[in-house]
Amino acid sequence: MHAAAKKIRMGFVGGGEGSFIARAHRQAAGIDGRFELVCGAFSRDPQNNQRTGAALGLAAERCYDDWQTLLESEARLPAEQRMQLLIIVTPNHLHAPIARQALSAGFHVFSEKPAALNLAEVQALHSVVISSQRIYGLAHTYLGYAMVWQARDMVASGVLGRVRKVIVEYPQGWLSTDVAGQGNKQAGWRDDPTQSGIGGCIGDIGTHAFSLAEFVAGQSIQFISAMLGSHVEGRQLDDDVAMLFKMTEGASGVLLASQVCAGEENPLKIRVYGDKGGLEWHQEEPASLIHRPLNEPMRILRSGVGQPWLCAAASQRMRLPAGHPEGYLEAMANLYGGLAEAILQGADDHQAPGVPGIETGLRGMAFIETAIANHRGNAKWSEIPAQLTGAANHEQ
Amino acid sequence: MHAAAKKIRMGFVGGGEGSFIARAHRQAAGIDGRFELVCGAFSRDPQNNQRTGAALGLAAERCYDDWQTLLESEARLPAEQRMQLLIIVTPNHLHAPIARQALSAGFHVFSEKPAALNLAEVQALHSVVISSQRIYGLAHTYLGYAMVWQARDMVASGVLGRVRKVIVEYPQGWLSTDVAGQGNKQAGWRDDPTQSGIGGCIGDIGTHAFSLAEFVAGQSIQFISAMLGSHVEGRQLDDDVAMLFKMTEGASGVLLASQVCAGEENPLKIRVYGDKGGLEWHQEEPASLIHRPLNEPMRILRSGVGQPWLCAAASQRMRLPAGHPEGYLEAMANLYGGLAEAILQGADDHQAPGVPGIETGLRGMAFIETAIANHRGNAKWSEIPAQLTGAANHEQ
Amino acid sequence: MHAAAKKIRMGFVGGGEGSFIARAHRQAAGIDGRFELVCGAFSRDPQNNQRTGAALGLAAERCYDDWQTLLESEARLPAEQRMQLLIIVTPNHLHAPIARQALSAGFHVFSEKPAALNLAEVQALHSVVISSQRIYGLAHTYLGYAMVWQARDMVASGVLGRVRKVIVEYPQGWLSTDVAGQGNKQAGWRDDPTQSGIGGCIGDIGTHAFSLAEFVAGQSIQFISAMLGSHVEGRQLDDDVAMLFKMTEGASGVLLASQVCAGEENPLKIRVYGDKGGLEWHQEEPASLIHRPLNEPMRILRSGVGQPWLCAAASQRMRLPAGHPEGYLEAMANLYGGLAEAILQGADDHQAPGVPGIETGLRGMAFIETAIANHRGNAKWSEIPAQLTGAANHEQ
Amino acid sequence: MHAAAKKIRMGFVGGGEGSFIARAHRQAAGIDGRFELVCGAFSRDPQNNQRTGAALGLAAERCYDDWQTLLESEARLPAEQRMQLLIIVTPNHLHAPIARQALSAGFHVFSEKPAALNLAEVQALHSVVISSQRIYGLAHTYLGYAMVWQARDMVASGVLGRVRKVIVEYPQGWLSTDVAGQGNKQAGWRDDPTQSGIGGCIGDIGTHAFSLAEFVAGQSIQFISAMLGSHVEGRQLDDDVAMLFKMTEGASGVLLASQVCAGEENPLKIRVYGDKGGLEWHQEEPASLIHRPLNEPMRILRSGVGQPWLCAAASQRMRLPAGHPEGYLEAMANLYGGLAEAILQGADDHQAPGVPGIETGLRGMAFIETAIANHRGNAKWSEIPAQLTGAANHEQ
Repeated sequence: MHAAAKKIRMGFVGGGEGSFIARAHRQAAGIDGRFELVCGAFSRDPQNNQRTGAALGLAAERCYDDWQTLLESEARLPAEQRMQLLIIVTPNHLHAPIARQALSAGFHVFSEKPAALNLAEVQALHSVVISSQRIYGLAHTYLGYAMVWQARDMVASGVLGRVRKVIVEYPQGWLSTDVAGQGNKQAGWRDDPTQSGIGGCIGDIGTHAFSLAEFVAGQSIQFISAMLGSHVEGRQLDDDVAMLFKMTEGASGVLLASQVCAGEENPLKIRVYGDKGGLEWHQEEPASLIHRPLNEPMRILRSGVGQPWLCAAASQRMRLPAGHPEGYLEAMANLYGGLAEAILQGADDHQAPGVPGIETGLRGMAFIETAIANHRGNAKWSEIPAQLTGAANHEQ
Repeated sequence: MHAAAKKIRMGFVGGGEGSFIARAHRQAAGIDGRFELVCGAFSRDPQNNQRTGAALGLAAERCYDDWQTLLESEARLPAEQRMQLLIIVTPNHLHAPIARQALSAGFHVFSEKPAALNLAEVQALHSVVISSQRIYGLAHTYLGYAMVWQARDMVASGVLGRVRKVIVEYPQGWLSTDVAGQGNKQAGWRDDPTQSGIGGCIGDIGTHAFSLAEFVAGQSIQFISAMLGSHVEGRQLDDDVAMLFKMTEGASGVLLASQVCAGEENPLKIRVYGDKGGLEWHQEEPASLIHRPLNEPMRILRSGVGQPWLCAAASQRMRLPAGHPEGYLEAMANLYGGLAEAILQGADDHQAPGVPGIETGLRGMAFIETAIANHRGNAKWSEIPAQLTGAANHEQ
Repeated sequence: MHAAAKKIRMGFVGGGEGSFIARAHRQAAGIDGRFELVCGAFSRDPQNNQRTGAALGLAAERCYDDWQTLLESEARLPAEQRMQLLIIVTPNHLHAPIARQALSAGFHVFSEKPAALNLAEVQALHSVVISSQRIYGLAHTYLGYAMVWQARDMVASGVLGRVRKVIVEYPQGWLSTDVAGQGNKQAGWRDDPTQSGIGGCIGDIGTHAFSLAEFVAGQSIQFISAMLGSHVEGRQLDDDVAMLFKMTEGASGVLLASQVCAGEENPLKIRVYGDKGGLEWHQEEPASLIHRPLNEPMRILRSGVGQPWLCAAASQRMRLPAGHPEGYLEAMANLYGGLAEAILQGADDHQAPGVPGIETGLRGMAFIETAIANHRGNAKWSEIPAQLTGAANHEQ
Repeated sequence: MHAAAKKIRMGFVGGGEGSFIARAHRQAAGIDGRFELVCGAFSRDPQNNQRTGAALGLAAERCYDDWQTLLESEARLPAEQRMQLLIIVTPNHLHAPIARQALSAGFHVFSEKPAALNLAEVQALHSVVISSQRIYGLAHTYLGYAMVWQARDMVASGVLGRVRKVIVEYPQGWLSTDVAGQGNKQAGWRDDPTQSGIGGCIGDIGTHAFSLAEFVAGQSIQFISAMLGSHVEGRQLDDDVAMLFKMTEGASGVLLASQVCAGEENPLKIRVYGDKGGLEWHQEEPASLIHRPLNEPMRILRSGVGQPWLCAAASQRMRLPAGHPEGYLEAMANLYGGLAEAILQGADDHQAPGVPGIETGLRGMAFIETAIANHRGNAKWSEIPAQLTGAANHEQ
């Protein structure tokens, strides 16, 4: 007799009506059927909170007024009923306070990025993560794509030779006009430093480009020279960033991120060149990984279950045969898969396999602070603090 | 106080270990969180059946030995616990027998295509569907894509003017060699007429091309002239089909479907041309709909929540902002969404809104039989039986 | 001391002001600098004729009133001054009469296609070509593209294994409205059977698709089943064609050609599939040849001087390094290069190496007549006359 | 009676056997038939020189031993026979000395870029150009593409609104290995500072990216922050460059140029974003200009004679109908067309309409020197000398 698989009980803080990202988390978690939603504190508006919970099938008593109540109440429930994993999808300034308290109360955490509002706060959170022995994951969703792992594997196994150049870009256009002033809530809190932190575009998407570059190249960005800009009247934070960088193993490159590239959607893209060839991947066409071996025809490695050219890490992140597109939700589902594995195995490490964690959070925040300081100063190059550079190589 | 949303209870026939399509159904149903799996008869192999159920978190007593037992046992359960929707993912020859009995027992049905093994059997099933007043859906997944609805809407609203040409193609390559002989189960039963019916490629994917053409063009294919082929030694059924066709409203076109186009993945593609412009859509890049207005620059309509150019039917089939790829599972999830709507609203019609139903099954089977007869005979043109041609315009 | 290279003296019949194709011929011939224009009878309008000649730098006395005068006058000139090659760029009905007389008078001929108005006339011309021992070339320009030769070479050398499927399409849109009625001269004579022959679209571009399919596949199209259409009121000839076909070595396929695919430009495209892989080439992106080897990643073979994967025939048709686009004029220049080689070497064969000749003309006309007869009749399949099928393999 | 058009008599310095660029110049000049080659000093190797001249049909007496002899001898010929335009296709260090002397002797000049080896030398040349009243053109071939002019026109006419971002990139891969050491002559002299100047990649292709950015954006690059690199052992000059920049009218951007992006061909690409939309153009697919208007579907403007959306400057640079690819040679032929117009009209200005001239040379050299100085120093930003910034807006 086989024991029936149990689902992991998860709760949400944030994600009331109209939240795109919370819905995406629930959809992603739903794909592989390993989670069930058991509680939430979705909104500070009690009506919104209750409506959201009801629509999601939650019992009213597990739809809590605020996150403190959620943590306290769930902690008192029997272990068999109690929430196991807390998903944090609030504005940025709440990420760290909630995460710290949840971890301390014994819950696993999966948090939207950034990990916190500034580097000191991430460092404090880091200590809590380490001591809690709970899983802490950070929703760097793009690192969940199968072909990103394929690219990383090909670099690591030497297919490109020695890496020389890394070009990563993320030119969005949705903040080309004053959408915050026109009532867009997502744009609104993102431009409020008390909720968003000191970085605008650089924090929102620059960190995605940064973590992707380090993840694929397998080396850390050490020195950067940055230019930030803000292009709409009344906007407080940056909406555009470009920088030159040098990496720890000798590669150099360029990072672009912008939210005023009018007309662009979400074209995160990375190119890596070594002395034996190059790789190119576009998030908007995630099934294709372009490989240009030196002096041979370019090849397009396509994803799909059973494709013989895929590495193990890529293969296990695919669900469908070639030609059946998988996308953003499936990439996020891969992160949820890593969380599920770690939780079910009772791992006492804080790091779920294949899921970006607190080290990625440290790196990202150091990147933001260093870039903004460099932009404001006169020095050409600034170094991302050395004690934090160990994290570019995420464990698998 | 808001009542908590209830999930729809679903069961599976078929889909033991290794079944791609059953897993895809479960993943698709999981995305929007409106279904819960409550029972199954996954495999005739008892071990496989129990293992599958256990892995899916089912209680052993609702993991039934065969589909007859499943139907009988579920029917005896209290209404609050009883399965509501049966998903049929068996080989083709079982689709109709199971569907007939499930409908008669009062269950809603969502069946893999084809609806049955031959036209007579689909007609018999059609009668049962009508009299049962239960929902019957057919997994023509490609009709769940948002941009397919956008294309259909643009044709219907006259953006292309009078439709003249429809070119639909579906060239796969996975049967280029004797994969059935090499142990591929999917390929094996598909080439066994007792399990698959008289059509090979034409039934498996030709019907997808056919239903897509009628759906988007908004008119029926009336006359066809077909050529079928079989290219691998020992293969019993066709692996390749091409045909010319004429439609009821005056358009003409070409339909290609093949499983021996070596190296191709799943590039279902449709082009429609009218006197005012043309449209083009590729399943492998489903977010883009190419529109070529006469004497104006070509435009690429991109999908995404909130894109102002999308029709209502397309918009409601999107989950993510532009540039966040959605794919095959999300298209199938759209069909599950239609099923959920219909079931929750207690619709007494057999047709779930936006979900292909038994009429699509009738059309598809008439198409298969007409094409094969035409291929074998000497007549240039054969007519798809007229009494069945009402179904090209799926209700929304 | 090296003798200075002499340029080949060429003359034109047709190509007065406003002729696109005549200008393209002169531009193509100019690229490699092996020809000089010495005479012409450009227009039956004497003013237009003289203006055209003057603009091209011709002396007035070699700008003749009509083609008969041109042939007679040039024949009387000393060999050192006399035209060597006549370019025929008139409407279709004049191609054969002029070519016959020019060949008989000892001139080499490069004619726009079709070779003549009907099959009997091509056969008569064929006899003259053979007996004249002069070069006769036909401007099937698309057979001048380097990557078409690369595709042909890969098929011939077995890279694809046994060829099973050939899909060739040529969907233009420029005749979607009554452009002839609106004064477009090119469209006007093309729709006049006395100038154009019995075929409209099938003759104008269907023959390009046909010759490309035979050229690349290395086998002849033997049986066809065709559907033609005409979509604009008052139009006399077909503007749209689709057909199924079977080839001499067992491959089957589909040919599409249309001039009412609104919004399309000039996307001639061919796909060939064998049991070991597939190839795909698009005229609008001529530098890329897509190769899909079975069970290996797809590859994009790019053209360019020195690319190590190119066959000799492709390499010698390139002028620029990879990434420097070559296009239609360069493809036509490759045909001029073949003519130059043949003329300079004093070849007594009628066939210039790499240049489609009278056999291609015979095949094309047999194709047109067979397709139209099939379309009008009740038979499913019609055979292209067997005695003409030797020409599918153009000599290199 | 119309007077016969005379061809412009041109001569070459440089371009012996094996020179790609000289052959490209001759092919480009040949397309529109407005030039005839009358003399040359092709190589310092007398055998090579004579063979080249003979192969090109030159009389031996106009195939000169060196460029000094060429200039002297041609100057003594009667005006009706004398060379009018000198094409300079030597290694870089000879560009300025030859150009100066040729202009002084009354010849028009079309020079490969760069104009000279350093800024002082360009300034000296600039004086000679001004005083000579002869045409001086610089082969910035990419500024000859029709769709580059279309892009420039759309920016200038406000289609994008206020320009905010310019991203220009030119990642080649051909110097990924030590091809100079392996005998590649083109690579060899390019890495010799005495022949090439102080810039490697930045001079060879960085200047193309630079001039394209200024040309399309219609504003000048004022401040730059640059990083250069050299990646192959023994290489003397840079093979890779990246920089941030700020423009005179408020736009900022990034410029990338590299010759060690292994596997890349020649993908010069520019993107420009304003507050109303964005534009994107790729040299390897030059017929398409992507336009992303804010809040409207993206559009692809395609080139071709008669396309109603093209501006006059783009239209007059097209030869063929849409879908008939034009490429690099046609872009260069557009520069030759501008030279021909200017020479035939006896313009006493030194600037041929639509042809980059000495001002572009000044800008390019100031760019090279500023970038290298910035790279070597500690300052974050360096300014391209202000007195030279007037040239970003090329006259049409």
